[in-house]
Parts: sequence; structure tokens; C-alpha cells
Amino acid sequence: MLRFYYAPNTCALASHVALEEVGAAYELVPVDFATTEQRSAGYLSINPKGRVPSLVTDRGILTETPAILAFIAQSYPDAKLAPLDDAFAFARVQAFNSYLCSTVHVAHAHRMRGHRWADDPGAIAEMQRKAPQAVTECFDLIERTLLIGPWVMGEGYTICDPYLFTLAQWWEADQVDSTRLPKLSDHRRRMAERPAVARAIRAELG
Amino acid sequence: MLRFYYAPNTCALASHVALEEVGAAYELVPVDFATTEQRSAGYLSINPKGRVPSLVTDRGILTETPAILAFIAQSYPDAKLAPLDDAFAFARVQAFNSYLCSTVHVAHAHRMRGHRWADDPGAIAEMQRKAPQAVTECFDLIERTLLIGPWVMGEGYTICDPYLFTLAQWWEADQVDSTRLPKLSDHRRRMAERPAVARAIRAELG
Repeated sequence: MLRFYYAPNTCALASHVALEEVGAAYELVPVDFATTEQRSAGYLSINPKGRVPSLVTDRGILTETPAILAFIAQSYPDAKLAPLDDAFAFARVQAFNSYLCSTVHVAHAHRMRGHRWADDPGAIAEMQRKAPQAVTECFDLIERTLLIGPWVMGEGYTICDPYLFTLAQWWEADQVDSTRLPKLSDHRRRMAERPAVARAIRAELG
Repeated sequence: MLRFYYAPNTCALASHVALEEVGAAYELVPVDFATTEQRSAGYLSINPKGRVPSLVTDRGILTETPAILAFIAQSYPDAKLAPLDDAFAFARVQAFNSYLCSTVHVAHAHRMRGHRWADDPGAIAEMQRKAPQAVTECFDLIERTLLIGPWVMGEGYTICDPYLFTLAQWWEADQVDSTRLPKLSDHRRRMAERPAVARAIRAELG
């Protein structure tokens, strides 16, 4: 059986929702960030990067949200979470998720994890100050150019949707003004209504 | 025919090498960063993110290196640049490339593109100062835990290899001490000897 390592309020929620959407059998294992368990020898033996999520399979361990999402889509093809038989359409899905991981999540990370890129407290505070603007610019671009609607890729719900929803869950903390994001706000509302999303959030918050 | 937009010394080299490896027919189009052409209306109509690479296909435009790399592998299956019939092995490939785009490239970007995450010149200088350390930690992790050898995924050359090579090309500028990275140094040497790599570099530098 799959084992899924997560922490609440992290990007692990995206893969967690996808596991729920496909009806996977898996064990949910919390990693306690409050005690920095993600840096413990035990967890580093699972994921040497010291991050969540990690998905333990009978073949080995997978990390990185875009890779885990595509793996879930490919492993449960009946759930149709990605256009698996169309390399171009699949690449569009992957490009969206790659933008989320390399640009949107990174912009967000400068609010709380500035120590990754600076030691000086003043520089870390300056990153924190600018993070809302950088995150907002990303969501503006998604609203204007990337989100087709009603789902990210149009009529079909894909692995882009839970990932986008996960990052949108941080809007309040990131001081993103959602009134300028009507399409995205509607997407977030409809995502929250999905049973798989409700189950994943309930399980993470205990 | 495919059209591939790139700038020299950027991550576009990874996809460029992959296009050469599979023998694709494509037109190579430079984007002039010196005149900030990437922010011009013309280029923003191709890629609203104002970044390279962009791959124009007869179906539409693709962006984001990990997505383009997987698209090339899937579109030219005879080149065997990814384990396309094995969802787990494919996910390992994708996880590696996702780490490169979301963590390694991002650590590097703090040396030259700090303005994305701070306005204050002192904070930008502090990011620049720390970048070599952050980049080095990433390559240490790859050397210790991710690179199987002789290629990233073992015996088979995949889309991980040109991407890793592309980021390793920045070692000197990023002040990475390559003497502590024997496996990676050997990988970089063997990559440079591949005809596809030599052709891509020659074409980019004109």
C-alpha cells in the first residue's frame, strides 16, 4: 500500500487531494514541522531533501509535487486526471504545474523561508515584505492567461486543479487581494466543494 | 516545423540539447536579453511569462523546461529519452527535473535575479552573496543521493542529463567548488563530448 508523508498547510495537499480523487488506498503519515521532524534522520532517510510530500510505493520513494501528481494520473488512468494519450495536452498540464512549483510556490516561500536564500535578518525581512506583491503578480498572470475555466485546462478536471487550489489556500496569509481574481476565486470555491478536497482537508487538520 | 525560442547561457540549453538528441526539425530563434526582448510585446504574445524557453508547435506553444523535455521524449519515443512505459520510472525522471527547476535553478537565480524577490539593493546583494552556498548545497545533494551514474538515472541517458548539464554549466559563475563533486564533474565532461551537446552550444554561441 502507498504511504503518503505530508504536513498541514503545505503543498502536499495537492497530491493528497489527487490520491482522494482517484480512490487510492494509502496510509497518511504526518511529518511534524513544529519539531522540525522533516530534518530528522528518520525522515531524511525517506526524503534527503527534508521536504514534503513524499510518496512511498512498492517500487521506491517519489518526491516533488509535479512528479507525484503525474504519477497518480498515470497510475489511475480511469480517473482521467490528465490527457495521457496526447503528448501536447499532457505537456500543457505539466507546464502549468511546473510554473506553480518553480515560480508561484517560490514567490510564496520568500515570506516564511527567506533563510534559504539569505542570512541577514534585514534581507529576510525585505523578502517577506515583497512576497505579497510577487505572489499577486503570479496569480494575476494565471487569471489573465493560464486558467481556461471552469477548470484550469478547460472542461476537464486535471492534476492542475488541486495544485492550483493548494497554492490559492495561502492567499490570506500571502495578502493576495482576491477581489481582483474573479475566475480564480470561483475556481477555489468550486474546488472546496469537491468531496475529495473536503476529505483531504479534514484528514490533514485532524 | 517546431520553432524554439532561447537565449544563450539560460536553461533553454536543456531543451535545445534534447531537440538535437532526437533529431527534431526545428527553427532556432534567439531572444535578445541584452535589449530585454523577453519583455517585448512581440515575445510576451508567445510567452506571457517573459521567459525562455518557448517551443512553438503546430498545436500551440509550450513553456517550462520540465514540460518541454517530457514532451520531446514522448514525441520522439524511438530516442528513448525517458522510460515512457513505466509510470514509476517516469516519475523518478520527473522528480529529478522538478528539483532542478524548483530548487537548483531558483538557488542560482538569486545571484542575478534577486530583484524578483526584493527591491532593496542591500537585500539583493545579500542574496547574491549567499547564492554560491545555496547552489553548492543542491549539487552536494545531487552528488550524494540523486545521481546514479553513469547517467542521472543509471545506464540509460534521459531528459535528466541535458538539464543537469545545463545547470552545471553555471558552476564557475556560481562559484561552485567542483573538486568536491567528482561524479558530477565526470557527468559534465561526458555530456560535453556528446555531438548533440556540442551542436547545441555551437548554435547558441553563433
